[in-house]
Amino acid sequence: MYSSEKYPSQILREAVEAIGSLPGVGSRSALRLALHLLGQPAESVHHFTAAVNRLADEVHYCHICQMIADADTCAICADHTRDARTICVVESVRDVMSIEATGQYRGVYHVLGGIISPIDGIGPSDIHIRELVERIGRMKGEDIEIILALSGDVEGETTSLYIYRQIEGLGVKVSTLARGLGFGDDLEYADALTLGRSITGRQPFRP
Amino acid sequence: MYSSEKYPSQILREAVEAIGSLPGVGSRSALRLALHLLGQPAESVHHFTAAVNRLADEVHYCHICQMIADADTCAICADHTRDARTICVVESVRDVMSIEATGQYRGVYHVLGGIISPIDGIGPSDIHIRELVERIGRMKGEDIEIILALSGDVEGETTSLYIYRQIEGLGVKVSTLARGLGFGDDLEYADALTLGRSITGRQPFRP
Repeated sequence: MYSSEKYPSQILREAVEAIGSLPGVGSRSALRLALHLLGQPAESVHHFTAAVNRLADEVHYCHICQMIADADTCAICADHTRDARTICVVESVRDVMSIEATGQYRGVYHVLGGIISPIDGIGPSDIHIRELVERIGRMKGEDIEIILALSGDVEGETTSLYIYRQIEGLGVKVSTLARGLGFGDDLEYADALTLGRSITGRQPFRP
Repeated sequence: MYSSEKYPSQILREAVEAIGSLPGVGSRSALRLALHLLGQPAESVHHFTAAVNRLADEVHYCHICQMIADADTCAICADHTRDARTICVVESVRDVMSIEATGQYRGVYHVLGGIISPIDGIGPSDIHIRELVERIGRMKGEDIEIILALSGDVEGETTSLYIYRQIEGLGVKVSTLARGLGFGDDLEYADALTLGRSITGRQPFRP
């Protein structure tokens, strides 16, 4: 690697450092990308940076579900063909995109924007749990289902339990994602925890 | 992959497309990077884009060797301890950085900014060959050495030959990089072309 004091230009060095601060971009890749951008016409570079700046400056968050949107209400919450009484609680925008890509879900979402993680200093008030409780409180009727679709690690389990304690008195049905072997998975290659849970959580055979 | 019409935000889609236009960044990585930037404070994103914009707007090119620089003359050409009568001709800024990183070269450079490639529509007048010829013409004396340090492929060989024809009448010594097995290379794993050239171009043994 080219040592920092030998960069031919301070401007290049700063661009490499900025690009190298992105997750998963090493210093070699950062240099390669910076030199690529250096070889582009200025208007191409400006087009690139303007598109990135709009992420910081112009993105809205849905006032109902906290999903990113181009307006005050996201396209999913604005879609009246979707079941607004089934709310899937997820950690991130990415999770909504992943579930939407399955085409299997017709309810709506609630994006927490993070997960409870004491080690990272993230507590319940740092994510959108209060907004979820208030949202449920505003809804009438008893046929509301909350799907806790958080990750299966300690932080996800902790957050799911915390949310459950907050909403268990509100008369809503609370469910979580089915876990077990992936479809098409070989038993031979499954990890012991997943295989064990798949056996204890076995389901009726539907021929 | 999340299909384009299902992006929750047009702004996100445009940012992913812009990031995905970088070389070696696939659509999944582009989405991951865009969502990372979305989660950053606005000032971090602005710092990133400002550093990239300066690449397009503020970088100078050395008026002597065409290397990028923060002033009209690059740090290498401005360094009077370097041998200005030995000029290493390279394709790109990256090549200068690679040779400088070896610490083995005390001459100066001439950056062509490309390579002759008819298939890409790049001819001799599209790269800085004329500037090299004029530069040599301005220099007095007979002890000038031009090192043609271009790649070993067809385009590199073509460009080297073209430059040689332009400067052979100017009374300069012209050399090129030594090619052969890498230091520490096993014969067993060398490609046949390299091994063959290493034999025909064998050098005196210096014990």
